[in-house]
Amino acid sequence: MKKDSDAVNVFNLTMLMDFYEFTMANGYFLQGMEDHIAYFDMFFRRVPDGGGYAIMAGVEQLIGYLSDLRFDAGDIDYLREKGVFSEGFLEYLRDFKFKCDVWAIPEGTPIFPQEPIIKVRGPIIQAQLIETMMLLTINHQCLIATKANRICRAAAGRPVSEFGSRRAQGGHGALMGARAAYIGGCASTACTMAERDFRIPATGTMAHSWVQSFDTELEAFEAYARLYPDRCVFLVDTYNVIKQGVPNAIRASREQLLPKGCRPLAIRIDSGDVTYLSKVSRKMLDDAGFPDCKILVSNSLDEHIIRGIISQGAQIDSFGVGEKLITSQSEPVFGGVYKLAGIEQPDGRVKPKLKLSENVEKITTPGNKNVFRFYSRNDDMAIADVLTLDGEQIDESAPYTLFDPENTWKRKTVTDYYVKQLLIPIFKDGVCIYTSPPLDEIRDYCGVQVDRLWEEILRFDNPQEYYVDLSQKLWDLKYGILHDLSGA
Amino acid sequence: MKKDSDAVNVFNLTMLMDFYEFTMANGYFLQGMEDHIAYFDMFFRRVPDGGGYAIMAGVEQLIGYLSDLRFDAGDIDYLREKGVFSEGFLEYLRDFKFKCDVWAIPEGTPIFPQEPIIKVRGPIIQAQLIETMMLLTINHQCLIATKANRICRAAAGRPVSEFGSRRAQGGHGALMGARAAYIGGCASTACTMAERDFRIPATGTMAHSWVQSFDTELEAFEAYARLYPDRCVFLVDTYNVIKQGVPNAIRASREQLLPKGCRPLAIRIDSGDVTYLSKVSRKMLDDAGFPDCKILVSNSLDEHIIRGIISQGAQIDSFGVGEKLITSQSEPVFGGVYKLAGIEQPDGRVKPKLKLSENVEKITTPGNKNVFRFYSRNDDMAIADVLTLDGEQIDESAPYTLFDPENTWKRKTVTDYYVKQLLIPIFKDGVCIYTSPPLDEIRDYCGVQVDRLWEEILRFDNPQEYYVDLSQKLWDLKYGILHDLSGA
Repeated sequence: MKKDSDAVNVFNLTMLMDFYEFTMANGYFLQGMEDHIAYFDMFFRRVPDGGGYAIMAGVEQLIGYLSDLRFDAGDIDYLREKGVFSEGFLEYLRDFKFKCDVWAIPEGTPIFPQEPIIKVRGPIIQAQLIETMMLLTINHQCLIATKANRICRAAAGRPVSEFGSRRAQGGHGALMGARAAYIGGCASTACTMAERDFRIPATGTMAHSWVQSFDTELEAFEAYARLYPDRCVFLVDTYNVIKQGVPNAIRASREQLLPKGCRPLAIRIDSGDVTYLSKVSRKMLDDAGFPDCKILVSNSLDEHIIRGIISQGAQIDSFGVGEKLITSQSEPVFGGVYKLAGIEQPDGRVKPKLKLSENVEKITTPGNKNVFRFYSRNDDMAIADVLTLDGEQIDESAPYTLFDPENTWKRKTVTDYYVKQLLIPIFKDGVCIYTSPPLDEIRDYCGVQVDRLWEEILRFDNPQEYYVDLSQKLWDLKYGILHDLSGA
Repeated sequence: MKKDSDAVNVFNLTMLMDFYEFTMANGYFLQGMEDHIAYFDMFFRRVPDGGGYAIMAGVEQLIGYLSDLRFDAGDIDYLREKGVFSEGFLEYLRDFKFKCDVWAIPEGTPIFPQEPIIKVRGPIIQAQLIETMMLLTINHQCLIATKANRICRAAAGRPVSEFGSRRAQGGHGALMGARAAYIGGCASTACTMAERDFRIPATGTMAHSWVQSFDTELEAFEAYARLYPDRCVFLVDTYNVIKQGVPNAIRASREQLLPKGCRPLAIRIDSGDVTYLSKVSRKMLDDAGFPDCKILVSNSLDEHIIRGIISQGAQIDSFGVGEKLITSQSEPVFGGVYKLAGIEQPDGRVKPKLKLSENVEKITTPGNKNVFRFYSRNDDMAIADVLTLDGEQIDESAPYTLFDPENTWKRKTVTDYYVKQLLIPIFKDGVCIYTSPPLDEIRDYCGVQVDRLWEEILRFDNPQEYYVDLSQKLWDLKYGILHDLSGA
């Protein structure tokens, strides 16, 4: 088995940077500002698909990227040819050594709009340069993990397999998408590389072409049953599910499997009215003495279609989900952004920085911040997240008053809670100090944490908004700056 | 400069295969069918976004993948551990040597539903194994090239820059997306790696963080103007475009640029009502003596928004397009499929294979086929594409009768035409015999070929359907098989 991060790292992505990161970095260098210490936050503004929560993912690949950050001679030559960069800056890049501190919310954690999911502290030139790949990596995997979690919840305990490689947006889209889908709850993948590199169970049996390459469907099934008696899944929709496919699957099972003491694992239906076809197939299989033969369905599924066909009484044991999962087709963009939150002054204090906008929800929250999740001591359910200024403590023995940062009269005082700090240090002075948990643990953690959200947050449509509040100190800081800026 | 295909090949994608490709391949091997010669077609069924045409892209990366196809010792070990593959098959993989013939429609060509855009002839075990990555590579780049072509056409001659890396679905999504966007007509990209690897012009200047990292916007602009006097683009919306951003850009230009004999290249507006803001900014810049200073806009744009703001008289010289291009957000899936079309018999004749479906448009067209594009001799405009059986000639001196394959009474006889065979050989006996043109040539070719489609095909909404017809011989073959299968 290869190391989990090998596949990413071989394809060094250092140069996958927006060009303006370089022009700014060269600018900071020439201004003598390169070592000014900046704070940046990555956060997102809304959950895709109108959902109430997202799932954090991609931290392991971000670590791989940051650990590997280096500019080789070819990169430097290319940049020099552009004719816009100083030799001093190119030398800085040649000798580049990552020095930032990075905090991240662990993978598998439910995350919410407006809270920092990554925090970076370090020389502004470096903290800026890492923007593009950080956003790309985290945005992509959060997108797919979030979509997978919705789809798996719709399947209500039935295993979901990720089937989308052929429609993914590039090789990483397929491979890292399979990884994120597993974090979000998928049971397996069709992508062999995802098993080789990430130990995600890979499954698959036959395509229509297998069936077509024989003179008859029965011959195709019999051959397959002879070859794979103990893992036989028949694809039954090449010609006609009810008239041919299921009868041939039954016949091949009886003639090739039973004599060897084997039984058919499943049939797969990949087209047509799968609700109807599954019901009829179920009866045919039961009547033939194969009540243990599962029915697997795969045909442009997503969370809404799965919920629909289950509610119509479809007899389906597991789902294969392709393009609508691997691209998050209904909303293929996770809009995470990366914004400057403060600059450290020579005396060590952080000068907060805020980005104004006509659109109030686009105004950033300044300063060096932490994120606390409040849980109820009674039932361990998540109550709210609160952003604080770094250094603020929360006294779990005292009541705590949450308030809506925009409608401050909306208040709620909680007692019997405990808090958990969400942002975990992953780099200190440029050195990785965090070990990613095994993928199975991340997936399990995700399941447990999602179960600690109220049903009202988990709803697919019109969920309640989970509280992401500011501490009084942070609120005072933010709104103080806003008043100053508006000149009022 | 690196070779165009380096970036892909370092990250060897051989194992990015759906697992069923392996179970089928092992099956063909054990059946003694591995060297049966099969024909497969890749084609798609509908154009994304309801458009009338798509753009072929990704062939160069497909060639890279097929040229590099090899299973290393680690891959073989991993497969052996699965416990389902025969040692003979694993040995076959270890010694794998690609032997197929492959034809492809060249990149940049407008392509249409139902026609083969790739054709493969070779040992069925190999022709099957390459399915996943072929579909992934071609689907992804066709998707982005097609979207980019729509967006560039909406911009009506104004340059469009691809800005989407941070929202791309993985590293390949960004890099290959930038490549495909360039083929589709984009003028440049923000992705530095795309310039290093593909020589696509990379552009970019400053982010909001640059402006925020100074005490005032004016200081930020002045510093930038001092550093980059001959390539100065000011991002003017960090605080307030009209009250601050444009006045500060004008002041910094006067104080820092004019004395050096330089002038501001452009301002960039990234938020707000860009139509209104561009008109006011244009007047301010003109009044200040900078009529040559361009206005660049970037804010969640797509072809419909661009067309809208141009029609409202916006004063915009160029567009930066991000997530809606790099993910083809409105329709992020290009649904190309790969289907068995025939099996060569011992006597060399091809036994046609056809996939039935309840859905008539999903029935495949069997046999070893070619694709001819008919052009008018009068104006070089494309008239129709015709699929023929291999070996059929088209006599350009004789009239040719086109007919709709489903409504065969719809007929049209054309004269004064010439034809071009679209599928070009790219591999012969597993050896690449095709050299991809330079990317600039592909992009130019795309522009020329799109201009040879009628306006009615190019329309964004409700376009006319371009004719993709069958020759009489091919039609007879297909409908003959259909009649036989239906038992009528």
